Amino acid sequence: MAAEQDPEARAAARPLLTDLYQATMALGYWRAGRARDAAEFELFFRRCPFGGAFALAAGLRDCVRFLRAFRLRDADVQFLASVLPPDTDPAFFEHLRALDCSEVTVRALPEGSLAFPGVPLLQVSGPLLVVQLLETPLLCLVSYASLVATNAARLRLIAGPEKRLLEMGLRRAQGPDGGLTASTYSYLGGFDSSSNVLAGQLRGVPVAGTLAHSFVTSFSGSEVPPDPGVPGCSQASSCIPGPHSSPTLFHRCWRQQLVRALGWTWRPKPRCGWSRFQVPWLESVLIVVSNNIDEEALARLAQEGSEVNVIGIGTSVVTCPQQPSLGGVYKLVAVGGQPRMKLTEDPEKQTLPGSKAAFRLLGSDGSPLMDMLQLAEEPVPQAGQELRVWPPGAQEPCTVRPAQVEPLLRLCLQQGQLCEPLPSLAESRALAQLSLSRLSPEHRRLRSPAQYQVVLSERLQALVNSLCAGQSP
Amino acid sequence: MAAEQDPEARAAARPLLTDLYQATMALGYWRAGRARDAAEFELFFRRCPFGGAFALAAGLRDCVRFLRAFRLRDADVQFLASVLPPDTDPAFFEHLRALDCSEVTVRALPEGSLAFPGVPLLQVSGPLLVVQLLETPLLCLVSYASLVATNAARLRLIAGPEKRLLEMGLRRAQGPDGGLTASTYSYLGGFDSSSNVLAGQLRGVPVAGTLAHSFVTSFSGSEVPPDPGVPGCSQASSCIPGPHSSPTLFHRCWRQQLVRALGWTWRPKPRCGWSRFQVPWLESVLIVVSNNIDEEALARLAQEGSEVNVIGIGTSVVTCPQQPSLGGVYKLVAVGGQPRMKLTEDPEKQTLPGSKAAFRLLGSDGSPLMDMLQLAEEPVPQAGQELRVWPPGAQEPCTVRPAQVEPLLRLCLQQGQLCEPLPSLAESRALAQLSLSRLSPEHRRLRSPAQYQVVLSERLQALVNSLCAGQSP
Repeated sequence: MAAEQDPEARAAARPLLTDLYQATMALGYWRAGRARDAAEFELFFRRCPFGGAFALAAGLRDCVRFLRAFRLRDADVQFLASVLPPDTDPAFFEHLRALDCSEVTVRALPEGSLAFPGVPLLQVSGPLLVVQLLETPLLCLVSYASLVATNAARLRLIAGPEKRLLEMGLRRAQGPDGGLTASTYSYLGGFDSSSNVLAGQLRGVPVAGTLAHSFVTSFSGSEVPPDPGVPGCSQASSCIPGPHSSPTLFHRCWRQQLVRALGWTWRPKPRCGWSRFQVPWLESVLIVVSNNIDEEALARLAQEGSEVNVIGIGTSVVTCPQQPSLGGVYKLVAVGGQPRMKLTEDPEKQTLPGSKAAFRLLGSDGSPLMDMLQLAEEPVPQAGQELRVWPPGAQEPCTVRPAQVEPLLRLCLQQGQLCEPLPSLAESRALAQLSLSRLSPEHRRLRSPAQYQVVLSERLQALVNSLCAGQSP
Repeated sequence: MAAEQDPEARAAARPLLTDLYQATMALGYWRAGRARDAAEFELFFRRCPFGGAFALAAGLRDCVRFLRAFRLRDADVQFLASVLPPDTDPAFFEHLRALDCSEVTVRALPEGSLAFPGVPLLQVSGPLLVVQLLETPLLCLVSYASLVATNAARLRLIAGPEKRLLEMGLRRAQGPDGGLTASTYSYLGGFDSSSNVLAGQLRGVPVAGTLAHSFVTSFSGSEVPPDPGVPGCSQASSCIPGPHSSPTLFHRCWRQQLVRALGWTWRPKPRCGWSRFQVPWLESVLIVVSNNIDEEALARLAQEGSEVNVIGIGTSVVTCPQQPSLGGVYKLVAVGGQPRMKLTEDPEKQTLPGSKAAFRLLGSDGSPLMDMLQLAEEPVPQAGQELRVWPPGAQEPCTVRPAQVEPLLRLCLQQGQLCEPLPSLAESRALAQLSLSRLSPEHRRLRSPAQYQVVLSERLQALVNSLCAGQSP
């Protein structure tokens, strides 16, 4: 796997890529004698991004790489010692020096799966101190990856299956790794290629590109231009850049302008307004457009009759301007075998207690009906069985009889060991497209979709109720 | 300098962190025998972000690190060979193997300087092929850094000088390096500290933090909690997290609630509504608020009478939701000693030709009046001298008599060699605050500011006119 040879792992594998408060809390746990208490956290989001009803799970491969390499070096521990109170017991730092993820177990939604609010993308269990320290890096690695994959999936749905989508946002990303993450996960979400050569080298993303204006303006007429075959490379083999201040205008008139500029004959065809050309290879030249293409502009370009072959999108895929962060959270659900819950006035910020299992309930046509969360110890729900479940905020349970039931979370790391090889990026990309194709149109549509429900089992709902009432479970 | 020991340099120093079209164009230049033509590019932006009238220049230290390490390794060249046409002359790849920046010269706006539309943040000159390849990485390293520094500067202006601003957006950033870049440059822009420990370790940014809800919910009452001194660390020494669904509500009632919860006496003071406490150290506990604080919420928190000490901002500083990209561009201005210009129907996208110098013209009170661009060979404008200059799009020149004139661009790398030590991050941060304090209130205000003009010298305007008219200069 290309990712395994990724020297970027060195950068991602920095254990101090975390918030200081994690170290403060680690010290608190350690002083309270609780560093090794068994704890479980869940990483999830509360709302689907961009006003849609779905998200794609992504970032797991980076998390696995991070967790397997997690270890504080001497320099890391020394730095922590320099920012924690000077009277901190040196034994705490000895404890930190010995830390790794060999006691950490992770269950996860496979990358490219559909993800919905409240359903864990990751369940992380292990010694309290260690799994607390992992909060920030895991959120950092999952949240943006899932956001940009979801954004890319939306753009793919708008573009339809035929148009080739080229991600070209490296220059608009949050620094080098922001660009690499964007290129990797927009490919996973459904783009065909990236302009980012490093994403090709390190992650196996197909690379493509055109030319910049500087190439055109560097030739004044007195130099010998390269022959027309030269710009050709891989995907976008003979792309010619044009004065495209407006992508829609550009694609309608560019071939025609080019033919005229070269002094060739342009023969209008009655249908669609396109010409046949004197020079046969001109027919096979790909038309690539770019220039601040957002969802709306893409919808126009994707209309029937558009002769555009490749659509290059930078800023609006990489920066996700409609919503530039997913708002992922990482919450404690159990410690010492006891469920824990955050109680707050804001019902949306309340958490779901306890170690849980998650299932997708499917209809007879194979489309997902709803996701169900239940306590880990409950029996697995069976297809064809009537289930009583609690929709969020409901006063009464409802019943559902799923035609199929899919467990959602796969055991990924057990006591620090990888349980199965991770799929390749291309395999995760294929899963994303398959998952989206199974989603019902009312959940898949991008504006005002039907909300997809995530329901609780009766026992999980009862646990929530008892903790809200201040009773021990 | 901490940055010099930064192992992140390895990640930033990837020469393939570029768009494929740069390699395509490199091949084009090489085949046309133009690889070593002397060329000059300028990196600039066209509009100030966030509706303001200023930006801060940032990212230069990362550019310098990148340029000094720039060299294609065998694996890089092999990867390029795998994506360029199979019949590419092997001599081209030999050329690439020998590339470095030893013939590249860079002039730059110092980090923390005020930057305005059209004024180069970087002028990059050297062999055409090399300086073309540098386009994407330089844009990637400068654009977001300048954007987030500007965003941080705006938040600092709103907060006023007293409130401590804590950046805590690592979990909302575009992957690990996005977070590191955000922490580094929000500090440069005026924040006091970051939660990101790696930014402390690698870049010397002061680190601070509080506690997560998980720390609170992990204690059920049966365990021995750590003593109150434990959470203390560096900056935010004794911060206590609260159930702060609303930051404004939180800071008004938290000390009071805490005192009641502990069974202590709460004595209202007639003025400001604050108490004196039974327990003296409670007076010195810092009040930290956070929870989706944007410019508007910050303005409320910064109002007179607010007892908040530290304001933690994550998403809205890191993702710059008001405008998540700067839109920096890198344009060819001269090749083979001849000026080049991009002509386009969109006047905003037209470029300014020729190798240029840039000056800031100051009034008698030391505040900047306007920036002036002129051809590099023109004499330096003198303080007190009347200058005839062309505002953008003007039909007539206007005159200005600056009390002071400051050259803007400093020679940073000459033929690949660093010309002077780069300032520390803290020094750049101080320059940013100084620069902002000198800006006149009408240019500094964040909403509907007066536009700051960037004018052209008469000779530069004449060159633009002659190139627009299709004449050689």
